[in-house]
Amino acid sequence: MPTKYEQKLNIDKNTVRIREGRKMKVAIIGSGNSGLAMAAHMSFTGNKVYLWNRSGEHIEELVEEKTVEAMGALVGTFPLEMVTTDMGDVIREAKAVFVTTPATSHHDLARLMAPHLRDGHIVVLNPGRTFGAIDFKDELLKHGNFHQVDILETQTIIYTCRKITPRKVNIIALKRDVLISTFAGIDLPEILRRLPDELNRFYIPAESMVETSIGNVGMIFHCAPMLLNTGWVESGHKFRYYREGISRTVADFIENIDKERQEVAKLLKHPVISAKEWLAHSYGLECTSLYECIQSNPSYGEIFAPANLNYRYIYEDIPFGLVPLESMGKDLGLSMRYTGLVIDLANALLGENFRETGRTAEKLHIDYKDLMRGVRVEDIEEENKKGDEEY
Amino acid sequence: MPTKYEQKLNIDKNTVRIREGRKMKVAIIGSGNSGLAMAAHMSFTGNKVYLWNRSGEHIEELVEEKTVEAMGALVGTFPLEMVTTDMGDVIREAKAVFVTTPATSHHDLARLMAPHLRDGHIVVLNPGRTFGAIDFKDELLKHGNFHQVDILETQTIIYTCRKITPRKVNIIALKRDVLISTFAGIDLPEILRRLPDELNRFYIPAESMVETSIGNVGMIFHCAPMLLNTGWVESGHKFRYYREGISRTVADFIENIDKERQEVAKLLKHPVISAKEWLAHSYGLECTSLYECIQSNPSYGEIFAPANLNYRYIYEDIPFGLVPLESMGKDLGLSMRYTGLVIDLANALLGENFRETGRTAEKLHIDYKDLMRGVRVEDIEEENKKGDEEY
Repeated sequence: MPTKYEQKLNIDKNTVRIREGRKMKVAIIGSGNSGLAMAAHMSFTGNKVYLWNRSGEHIEELVEEKTVEAMGALVGTFPLEMVTTDMGDVIREAKAVFVTTPATSHHDLARLMAPHLRDGHIVVLNPGRTFGAIDFKDELLKHGNFHQVDILETQTIIYTCRKITPRKVNIIALKRDVLISTFAGIDLPEILRRLPDELNRFYIPAESMVETSIGNVGMIFHCAPMLLNTGWVESGHKFRYYREGISRTVADFIENIDKERQEVAKLLKHPVISAKEWLAHSYGLECTSLYECIQSNPSYGEIFAPANLNYRYIYEDIPFGLVPLESMGKDLGLSMRYTGLVIDLANALLGENFRETGRTAEKLHIDYKDLMRGVRVEDIEEENKKGDEEY
Repeated sequence: MPTKYEQKLNIDKNTVRIREGRKMKVAIIGSGNSGLAMAAHMSFTGNKVYLWNRSGEHIEELVEEKTVEAMGALVGTFPLEMVTTDMGDVIREAKAVFVTTPATSHHDLARLMAPHLRDGHIVVLNPGRTFGAIDFKDELLKHGNFHQVDILETQTIIYTCRKITPRKVNIIALKRDVLISTFAGIDLPEILRRLPDELNRFYIPAESMVETSIGNVGMIFHCAPMLLNTGWVESGHKFRYYREGISRTVADFIENIDKERQEVAKLLKHPVISAKEWLAHSYGLECTSLYECIQSNPSYGEIFAPANLNYRYIYEDIPFGLVPLESMGKDLGLSMRYTGLVIDLANALLGENFRETGRTAEKLHIDYKDLMRGVRVEDIEEENKKGDEEY
């Protein structure tokens, strides 16, 4: 009998023998929701998993058991090769490095990885949010790593999931056709061939980083619905984040933000699909409005809201999503009314200045318009050398 | 044994014989929450109540029974002299006219009253929101009523209440020291002596219309908490509007709006107390932060949120509160960041343009700064005559 996971993916064991693809050593960075999901998925499909986490505090059980448990779309207990807080150890073992932490940690991770990454290493940001790969490469260069390390960014994480205990994750769904991209002039298919076969069943190469950086839909689903439910989030009442939190008025509002996102991509000559289309495609739904897609997505049925605003939906998706989006849009002559309003509101509610702390093209000394023709690694290297000369 | 109402107000029947004050015929305009509460209160204290409502639809029972029922702070069934949809009928009977409907209806009411109001009539707007008395007088003049009609505005309604059926109201609390004001150069104490004694136990004459117009605290409590709970409001779940909807982050946010309101009043030379101080005083609470005052106010325990955004908390308090406040503040050189953000958010969520539809000093052809020295009735009359000459 096929597992739930195999049923879900319509895998016929007789034709596709998923345990027989290319097996690899993979480093998974972060043991949060998606880190555990990816660890389980990779281990299940026969890869050797080297799991890293910043803090040793919540991974005692993982270290001790050296297994990860999954339920939902994938059921079972799966072995881990290594569980550690030592970055050097996992990177020395595995050439393929999968970052699953929020974008807020990308700078720190680049700094920690810089001494260990060598020619042939591949770092995949799952996802990169906006400008993820550029920022990561930039940071590696700043920390003196000029090796031939490939940095890829995805548009979203494959897994819709929630960690249940420090060692167990509920994998609600695996999304299909997750866009992945890298710098211009790089042979992306060649890099992808150096990743586990299993992942290539989910990743789809994008034509441009615009598709992943601006195709980042987290900023549409995560920011405004949190803020527009501030009292509810802080009330202590449990509620379904998507199903209940995104009411009709909230859905209409985020569709307006989404139109601004699409407009930016269009002006950058790499149109992206709408959040509604993305939802329908990723989850295989048939629905005509964003509200309806959310209501009819079975995978959203048991996703509950966080209990306070101090959460990645705000602290990651605003500075690493809406802020760069707004800065590009304004520069392109758009009003960015809805996007700007959400940033203003977050700043006012939380006493933050996300435009200051956020990831903007300016800070990366890269003209974001280069995204149109494609940013090359050399562009960033040159900029970093220029920077050096100025000292 | 004293009634609950008397206990609440610490009335000693032996010293204060509340049934023996001056009794009057009073017209009460509107049979909503506060219209019914006021009708019950006035009838209980021996006045003859003439109740008007725009629509005949929901008042069949009131018309038939000619009584209103109250529970809570005032318990009993009280006779009504008249219940009608004919404005002329109530105004011909009563010299004291109490408007209890949202400010959105003030223009229509002025138009309906204009043919009937005569010298000696007093119209009290409970409350006027911002610029209520000026706008009402202006509208009467526009409709050709140049009689000596006094227009008063209060800072808030006396009653914290909720209608339970078309004929029954739950009076949760009666607020003390409700500010009331009128135009400059008018003998307000003389007018107040022509109102029922009972009301003068609650009304406190203000020094300036600034104190009622900018002292309007509804705009602080009503707008932002609704918008910051949009999903919850539309979810169909019942929740306590103040206690649960105004979480810490929401409370901090509305305190920032309140600071802007106080700043405007200060620049107009008539400082107003903060929403926190107002709450503590009106309800007799001891508390140190706005959040704490809300949490500790027993009268807020059973006030539930409306089930959609199409409610006076938005459609009255934004155009008749925050919009004029913002316009004054900006003109005075303040950023009005928080106030403006709430208006922007409401506009974006609801597809409205409240700055366009709202009540601004500009539209009243009155320099709001005249509020400092006091607007006289003659100022408005002159402006209206000027207007006529332009035709």
